[in-house]
Amino acid sequence: MEKVKVGIVGLGRLGRQHAENLAFRISGCELLAVCSVAAEEVEQVQKDWGIKYGYTQFDEMLQNQELDAIFISSPSNFHCEQIVKALNAGFHVFCEKPLGLYLEEALRVQEAVNQQKDKIFMLGFMRRYDKSYQYAKKKIEEGKIGEPIFIRCYGLDPAKAMDEFIQFAKSNYSGGLFLDMAIHDFDLARWYLGVEAKQVWAIGGAYAYPEFSEMNDAETGTALVKFENNKIGIFVAGRNCAHGYHIETEIIGTKGTLRIGTIPEKNRVTVFDEKGAIKECSDGFLERFEQAYLSEAEEFIACIRENRQPAVTVKDGVISTALGYACRESFETGKLVTVQSPIQTPASLI
Amino acid sequence: MEKVKVGIVGLGRLGRQHAENLAFRISGCELLAVCSVAAEEVEQVQKDWGIKYGYTQFDEMLQNQELDAIFISSPSNFHCEQIVKALNAGFHVFCEKPLGLYLEEALRVQEAVNQQKDKIFMLGFMRRYDKSYQYAKKKIEEGKIGEPIFIRCYGLDPAKAMDEFIQFAKSNYSGGLFLDMAIHDFDLARWYLGVEAKQVWAIGGAYAYPEFSEMNDAETGTALVKFENNKIGIFVAGRNCAHGYHIETEIIGTKGTLRIGTIPEKNRVTVFDEKGAIKECSDGFLERFEQAYLSEAEEFIACIRENRQPAVTVKDGVISTALGYACRESFETGKLVTVQSPIQTPASLI
Amino acid sequence: MEKVKVGIVGLGRLGRQHAENLAFRISGCELLAVCSVAAEEVEQVQKDWGIKYGYTQFDEMLQNQELDAIFISSPSNFHCEQIVKALNAGFHVFCEKPLGLYLEEALRVQEAVNQQKDKIFMLGFMRRYDKSYQYAKKKIEEGKIGEPIFIRCYGLDPAKAMDEFIQFAKSNYSGGLFLDMAIHDFDLARWYLGVEAKQVWAIGGAYAYPEFSEMNDAETGTALVKFENNKIGIFVAGRNCAHGYHIETEIIGTKGTLRIGTIPEKNRVTVFDEKGAIKECSDGFLERFEQAYLSEAEEFIACIRENRQPAVTVKDGVISTALGYACRESFETGKLVTVQSPIQTPASLI
Amino acid sequence: MEKVKVGIVGLGRLGRQHAENLAFRISGCELLAVCSVAAEEVEQVQKDWGIKYGYTQFDEMLQNQELDAIFISSPSNFHCEQIVKALNAGFHVFCEKPLGLYLEEALRVQEAVNQQKDKIFMLGFMRRYDKSYQYAKKKIEEGKIGEPIFIRCYGLDPAKAMDEFIQFAKSNYSGGLFLDMAIHDFDLARWYLGVEAKQVWAIGGAYAYPEFSEMNDAETGTALVKFENNKIGIFVAGRNCAHGYHIETEIIGTKGTLRIGTIPEKNRVTVFDEKGAIKECSDGFLERFEQAYLSEAEEFIACIRENRQPAVTVKDGVISTALGYACRESFETGKLVTVQSPIQTPASLI
Repeated sequence: MEKVKVGIVGLGRLGRQHAENLAFRISGCELLAVCSVAAEEVEQVQKDWGIKYGYTQFDEMLQNQELDAIFISSPSNFHCEQIVKALNAGFHVFCEKPLGLYLEEALRVQEAVNQQKDKIFMLGFMRRYDKSYQYAKKKIEEGKIGEPIFIRCYGLDPAKAMDEFIQFAKSNYSGGLFLDMAIHDFDLARWYLGVEAKQVWAIGGAYAYPEFSEMNDAETGTALVKFENNKIGIFVAGRNCAHGYHIETEIIGTKGTLRIGTIPEKNRVTVFDEKGAIKECSDGFLERFEQAYLSEAEEFIACIRENRQPAVTVKDGVISTALGYACRESFETGKLVTVQSPIQTPASLI
Repeated sequence: MEKVKVGIVGLGRLGRQHAENLAFRISGCELLAVCSVAAEEVEQVQKDWGIKYGYTQFDEMLQNQELDAIFISSPSNFHCEQIVKALNAGFHVFCEKPLGLYLEEALRVQEAVNQQKDKIFMLGFMRRYDKSYQYAKKKIEEGKIGEPIFIRCYGLDPAKAMDEFIQFAKSNYSGGLFLDMAIHDFDLARWYLGVEAKQVWAIGGAYAYPEFSEMNDAETGTALVKFENNKIGIFVAGRNCAHGYHIETEIIGTKGTLRIGTIPEKNRVTVFDEKGAIKECSDGFLERFEQAYLSEAEEFIACIRENRQPAVTVKDGVISTALGYACRESFETGKLVTVQSPIQTPASLI
Repeated sequence: MEKVKVGIVGLGRLGRQHAENLAFRISGCELLAVCSVAAEEVEQVQKDWGIKYGYTQFDEMLQNQELDAIFISSPSNFHCEQIVKALNAGFHVFCEKPLGLYLEEALRVQEAVNQQKDKIFMLGFMRRYDKSYQYAKKKIEEGKIGEPIFIRCYGLDPAKAMDEFIQFAKSNYSGGLFLDMAIHDFDLARWYLGVEAKQVWAIGGAYAYPEFSEMNDAETGTALVKFENNKIGIFVAGRNCAHGYHIETEIIGTKGTLRIGTIPEKNRVTVFDEKGAIKECSDGFLERFEQAYLSEAEEFIACIRENRQPAVTVKDGVISTALGYACRESFETGKLVTVQSPIQTPASLI
Repeated sequence: MEKVKVGIVGLGRLGRQHAENLAFRISGCELLAVCSVAAEEVEQVQKDWGIKYGYTQFDEMLQNQELDAIFISSPSNFHCEQIVKALNAGFHVFCEKPLGLYLEEALRVQEAVNQQKDKIFMLGFMRRYDKSYQYAKKKIEEGKIGEPIFIRCYGLDPAKAMDEFIQFAKSNYSGGLFLDMAIHDFDLARWYLGVEAKQVWAIGGAYAYPEFSEMNDAETGTALVKFENNKIGIFVAGRNCAHGYHIETEIIGTKGTLRIGTIPEKNRVTVFDEKGAIKECSDGFLERFEQAYLSEAEEFIACIRENRQPAVTVKDGVISTALGYACRESFETGKLVTVQSPIQTPASLI
């Protein structure tokens, strides 16, 4: 098959990384178009990397008949609309999480995906493509730890990104801590435990930054989730991690335990100085998941070329969003919340 | 001052370790008497270690006027009665946790302690005497991690002790998973966070051993606790840990994080073989807390000799017991439970 | 610039990995030709990956005027001749280490490179392109550890590759343990310490496999090297590492220490089972240096496109080979050996 | 048996630690006398700990007929004479390493020990009593790593003790780096490998502190030792370790590898802050070997009470001293040195 012609929307940090991967590291595709509301970003990328088409209007990019696929890495509030439009315009679509900012948006996306079954749709749950997360999955499937019964997930953003985040959050709705940070972990929990969430209690607070209280959000929070078969999930999310970007996952089974990234080490170097033996930690998601971001994009392109759907489905996104909303509700009300499966909604929505 | 003359009751694994410490490793005291319902144990220890007095009846030991202090390491269901009797008979008393099996027992002990204010009473929360736990406390007091706002505690017994435990549990009430295993962690949480628990949700199940369901208990369980100032506590307790005795504590503060025992390593040896680089893990509490058990007994003897009360008070034991009961209630009812402070009870009980 | 057209010779495990990278992961080049003495390998790769040209004769590939560059990943005994031929035929050349099996071969290559100064020549010291090794270099340049004065390098092949190696070694000369295994480490030592070797004593033996004695080689060996300014180098090489492929490097400076890969962990997963907490280890060079192999090939292609020479020069290869030969001589004679700089040889050779 | 009555000479940091152990933590003995050239130290210790006798003259202490054993923790230059005198005066003797500053002194001690065969003599190779080192020994004896064929030992003193050391070294002869620092490691090598050293090459230098050159000593040095059966020993000693007191030992066998203290961690706490995940390191020998110092003293007392010789013999001390002198000679001459067994000396010396 010929190279897949891709257009990308969103040229922020992650968008640019995706664009670079599509342009230079995946031979099976060609990055033909870039789109961003910032005209100078578009021009710069076009010039630097020799990209044929540039757009400041998403709708215009969808007019380009040379394109096969649209890669969405724009701000979260655009996701739902852009996915639906791109699918309906006949493109294959990759979209960064989340499907949308509200459960209703996630369900709209699901409906659109279900109506365009001949198109490839992939959601950016990149951790499933990280080698260590995949290795853990393989271990579990091999029965290495027996039946997985407990998962603990940490998703902590580095403190040094705090000022920037607060600035952003004051004028943008991101869904709040549990939806924005923990959604990858909700997906992992379902993937590893193989069951669905039933009940949740989520607590948290603003400890160093009262701004979070003002925004009705948590600086650091924790959700305890009861899954089917009494399986246990602990989700710790935060935005004030002094040592960096701390993504850690532990799965306890009846016969053993797996930990992934228990120290979020930057690389294989240990520094010894007067403070001790130091493992420096990951700066952020681009550093930690560099390989996973490339691998998921490779998979998206491969799915198109081989005409098969990726393992991560829109349903995974919808259900994780629903769990995120249940956490949010529990955090806001202080009550135990029963998780409603959005999939058992009226047929018209599915 | 002369050597403190001690009598010990209970010669199980931990009791024997305490007895050995008192007999051979603490010069400030003399182990003058041992007591156990098993006459042959008493004789053996007397003969092996040259202990002057042996008893099979606790009440008889209390008649011995040469003794200054009673060290209680008997089964939990005897603690309350033995503490009260020994205090009232005029002895200094050390007792292993718990104060008793029921909150009422803990409160009875508290009353007795408060009535014998000239006697030294010490509760065996030995972790506070472990060097690593003490080091973490010092770091927090120095402000190293800012304000501590989150604690995560794992207290997991080794799977290889499972059969013995189930045998024991079928005919003995131990208080259940949260009271029996997590009570040390409740004490640590209060010690490190400096606030009291307000609300708890506890879940868990029987995954590999249905016997736990039959006993209305959990094989592995987790409690999420909301403390004052929205501080967060996660307590994971279990009895089926494949790799050994896993005691791990993490304190997250506004400026840093501390982990104690994040891998429960047996010693400083790493074994490399065809499986990989292996840190072998602790077998059980006697191995992990050998130093702490000795240090707490040294402190008890020193308190008697220097006529001062230890830092761990009976109140610490009572409050931790109350939190354990709140977890138990939440686990049994499935509901959020508000933690009642047992200290604000009628004056007659205090 | 147009894509660089590459032909590769050698389709063994590493050759195939290189070929895959050139074909699919580096957009700046095109893998136009593959060459191997095994015709069926050539056909298979051509078919699977759609490679235009296939050869079983290296000389024939050199006739192909469409090609810009030759990538050499053939057995070591062909390196010298193939490099010289390819350079003289006007191609840019990348070659896996070593430059040749004998110091004379390395010097012949150096001569050819020096005569074709307009061609890009790159030697596959891939560790310099590994992110962790690069990070360590940066730390040193920043003065983080003061003046580097000591290096310790482990290069241990996995025991499970032993049978295959012995089979191979019986009929092939690989240069022996120090030249074959430690040469990457000699390069690293020079790179990090910034000085040249002066004297060496190398010892070793055959411990589990007497075959090594018969081949006049060592199963495991160690060289202690005195560098200029009394700097110290320890090089441990071996072929019988039970836990896998152990590449570890430590640099001690006057103000701190760096360790790279002190446990040769496979990934970020820790497995806890009845043996303890296990970090599984790297299987072999393809797993450990996957990123570095890709990065060095990217750099080779970038050098061609940007018409600049890579940081690793032919001189680096020659000097490391000379140090390897000094180790070999010391091991064989049991004596201290002074390292002769091959660069200060008659002008005709340079 | 009655308590062993002990007199100790030397009340420096380690001497005081030993004295405290003998006085308070070992019930089988009584610390009856302390001796130091510093009269005020003697008085202080007598007063603080209630020690019956105090001396400023070693010979006077030897007159005390109540004593059973002499514990020597004085400066190294007194060891030989004090051991010989104490043995000849009829006491059991424990002495800190080294036996003496010169090989001749070690041989004199050996002669005295051999002439007083009914007395217990023990040399303070405390590492053999450290739990982790003992665990490694057990693993080797169980065949866990096959035949041990390689040992690597790091003995690095903390940089922060540098000024004090240089001050001390300017007016005191300590034997130099290899004798003073590596002698414990020489003993470990023989213990673990089970063979004797044959040849050595030792190099080193003064990198940050030229004072070492002036003293004809090394700031950091390395010895490569060929043992019998071609077994390999690497010994790295130094006095400028930025991160603390780094004692690390690795034993490679034909089927596996053991590392002891690969990171010289202070305790079980990991600190996470903006620098990364930090394992703080040991401050010095008192912190690292606290348990071993107590255990070796317990063993000494137990040997006296049970009338048996300890596993560490005077011969172990003599041979390790000889290896230290071979290293010193190699370092000073720059040559390969053959290790002479001092045990095969004229009968009069044995």
